[in-house]
Amino acid sequence: MKISVLGAGSWGTAIAIHLNRLGHQITLWLRDKNQFEEIVSTRHNKKYLDVDIPQEISITTDLKEAVTNSEIVVIAVPSHAVREISEKLKEVVDKNFIVVNLAKGIETSTLKRMSEVIKEYLSNDVVVLSGPSHAEEVVRQIPTACVLASLNVKACEIVQDAFMDENFRLYINKDVVGVELGGSLKNIIALGAGISDGLGFGDNTKAALMTRGLAEITRLGVALGSDPLTFLGLAGVGDLIVTCTSMLSRNRRAGILIGKGKSLEEALKEIGMVVEGVNTTKSAYRLSQINKIEMPITKEIYSILFEGKNPYEAVYSLMTRDKKHELHGI
Amino acid sequence: MKISVLGAGSWGTAIAIHLNRLGHQITLWLRDKNQFEEIVSTRHNKKYLDVDIPQEISITTDLKEAVTNSEIVVIAVPSHAVREISEKLKEVVDKNFIVVNLAKGIETSTLKRMSEVIKEYLSNDVVVLSGPSHAEEVVRQIPTACVLASLNVKACEIVQDAFMDENFRLYINKDVVGVELGGSLKNIIALGAGISDGLGFGDNTKAALMTRGLAEITRLGVALGSDPLTFLGLAGVGDLIVTCTSMLSRNRRAGILIGKGKSLEEALKEIGMVVEGVNTTKSAYRLSQINKIEMPITKEIYSILFEGKNPYEAVYSLMTRDKKHELHGI
Repeated sequence: MKISVLGAGSWGTAIAIHLNRLGHQITLWLRDKNQFEEIVSTRHNKKYLDVDIPQEISITTDLKEAVTNSEIVVIAVPSHAVREISEKLKEVVDKNFIVVNLAKGIETSTLKRMSEVIKEYLSNDVVVLSGPSHAEEVVRQIPTACVLASLNVKACEIVQDAFMDENFRLYINKDVVGVELGGSLKNIIALGAGISDGLGFGDNTKAALMTRGLAEITRLGVALGSDPLTFLGLAGVGDLIVTCTSMLSRNRRAGILIGKGKSLEEALKEIGMVVEGVNTTKSAYRLSQINKIEMPITKEIYSILFEGKNPYEAVYSLMTRDKKHELHGI
Repeated sequence: MKISVLGAGSWGTAIAIHLNRLGHQITLWLRDKNQFEEIVSTRHNKKYLDVDIPQEISITTDLKEAVTNSEIVVIAVPSHAVREISEKLKEVVDKNFIVVNLAKGIETSTLKRMSEVIKEYLSNDVVVLSGPSHAEEVVRQIPTACVLASLNVKACEIVQDAFMDENFRLYINKDVVGVELGGSLKNIIALGAGISDGLGFGDNTKAALMTRGLAEITRLGVALGSDPLTFLGLAGVGDLIVTCTSMLSRNRRAGILIGKGKSLEEALKEIGMVVEGVNTTKSAYRLSQINKIEMPITKEIYSILFEGKNPYEAVYSLMTRDKKHELHGI
């Protein structure tokens, strides 16, 4: 199968290598000319993953060349770039390929999910891939299980057949809204988990934050039309766990730096890659206000990131809110 | 308030020190004469937690002396010793104290929860305390949030008032069955998470196992009368997270050793303390058969622990079961 992967960040690079292993004909598109020159000459992605890129993978900066004759086009750019790439794709579409979206976020200006943004420009089927899947482990063929969701289950099945092997398992879930929101909103809680770790709080504290965090993102998800059970699955609690507990998570690492006293700007500079949870916090905070959903953790993270609130006070006040009965949240 | 704590393991020692800090009059009972001599002479618990025990805490090996005039008696022995201590308590009861149970397990011979075992001997109110609470962190006053459950909510409120401070938060949940089962069954999944880590699998793998694990323990819990929402709370996913991801968890550490190739006996010897998940796996496996509940992870852990199954094959087969649609589980 001819498959294009748009974006040579960690996830795009990992999925391109994975799909190449499965025997597909892969074209990896990237925008940055310098990165292009480097990867073509060295066959190595030094900035992301630090892995070799097999010769069979074509590399290009020409979007039309990349997607021509592709049966599947994988969008693997940061969420803030999904609108731009969708707009460009519209101009070069020459057949009805399936779009697989890997970007996890909620557009801050429109509060739309990524599949909604893509659908503004393309009539193609959009399949969302989400779940606990650090690119660093997928590229090393560590057993991983994720979820596919689409309005068209047939498209999910085509992607499942093309992408799945014994180390990379894909399950189908019909709840597109829940799968997209789970993948996006968990990054807020990961920032919070990182902040708690950075402040020197313990595993008990983080587990309590994650539990309350799961409850509040589920509340928002349900208000926006998700199936609550999706939040109990791989795209919900599964992705939350991996993002809040692994050092491979940029969101958690950014949180740790902030918890240790760095400013948001300093933390983002030190990470040097997109930290999706920052914009997602903005979007979710607005969505919680619009929909009148109580999201105390999101509110505190928002205050830390954008209003200069002291992280210690924020986490401590979250942990010590006076509640006499356990809040189940959904 | 006069409160007795029965058992000077990690959790008993931590809760005694915590309650002493809150100004209660504490008696710590322990069975082992050698440990008694050592603690009385050194005022230090070397084996568990390695902490100093304040002079104000009375230490005794006389159960009658320990519980006389107590308003609350905390049971902090391993789950396999709960029957014996309950039987002994029956003989020395002189007033209607509240029993707070910290032991997490399901009796292998009777398949009873701990509160059911206690109730065979005592007519007192039993309050269950559970949730993500490594003793090592509670003793250091790291913010921690747990759950209290009892058939008598009034008893929960008395315990909540006596035990809670700003670093140790207690929420009330009326679902005794779910709170007890969540705390017990999560130890099975922690063994599995440890085995996965010991085998060298990744954070992706462990998150997938934990997600599926949560689904299957919830399934069993619901079959036995629990509220599924309890498994989404502190005594469910919260305790699961802390036990599967922290190095402070004995169950996870035992799993790591087994994943690295040690036998169950070798692993338990190296840990040197009770690993509750081992007996709980036995009990849950039987409960799943009796109630015809699909528990693939529990089944594989059982095979590894008691039937000599190769851990790699067991975890790998769990990760690669052929499923085309995501199982939500409840």
